[in-house]
Amino acid sequence: MTQHIHHINFVVRDLAEAIPAWERILDQKVTSLDRLDERGVNIARFDLGQSWIVLVQPLRADTVPAKYLEQHGEGFFLMSLGTNSLQAEIERLGEAAFDGPARDGLDDWRVRDVAVARMFGAQVQFVEDSDS
Amino acid sequence: MTQHIHHINFVVRDLAEAIPAWERILDQKVTSLDRLDERGVNIARFDLGQSWIVLVQPLRADTVPAKYLEQHGEGFFLMSLGTNSLQAEIERLGEAAFDGPARDGLDDWRVRDVAVARMFGAQVQFVEDSDS
Repeated sequence: MTQHIHHINFVVRDLAEAIPAWERILDQKVTSLDRLDERGVNIARFDLGQSWIVLVQPLRADTVPAKYLEQHGEGFFLMSLGTNSLQAEIERLGEAAFDGPARDGLDDWRVRDVAVARMFGAQVQFVEDSDS
Repeated sequence: MTQHIHHINFVVRDLAEAIPAWERILDQKVTSLDRLDERGVNIARFDLGQSWIVLVQPLRADTVPAKYLEQHGEGFFLMSLGTNSLQAEIERLGEAAFDGPARDGLDDWRVRDVAVARMFGAQVQFVEDSDS
């Protein structure tokens, strides 16, 4: 179960404002723009090789990212650990180690959130994709 | 100026409590324990190949990490982008893009913080080390 930092999510109020600032820091154009209706977000991704930097703009107030933004303001939202077997991580850690069921992410990503109460304030999830 | 996610810092109140939780999630023992007197912190690192996960416990109230912990609580503190030339990033972005001067980090890491007011809540820094 090799792990790496698969992506880091930052929540922002307005992608149109945040993307140019990130393009400047990262010295590259945004890699792709997506919409994830189940999460109620627009998404901008930057490819840093082994890892993605992912900007998330909530579109509706009744979603997890929107509630996080409301509570914490803009900034870091979660870190996603790439694994070659999400199922193996679940069996290793047990169901109680997770919050909620597995869900689909971008592309063919399959993600599950680690129970935040156990991680000393760190929002962590596992993700399996075809490149893991 | 190839960039990658060099490390992610999480600030915690007590390394002795946080380390076992992270060891379980990452399925590995902590890689090293350090103390960085200039920043007033104890540090635990986990090696994820291209990236480190770094846990930081403030030891004094008058430090940047301690103030961050006081204001935000435990959790994500900053993301450090690895670069093969810190000086080239500074020349590319200009002095106004940074908060404060460059400083030493762990080992031979040399770091400089991106001006947080420009990054929509994301705490970002650049780091150059001999492996960059």
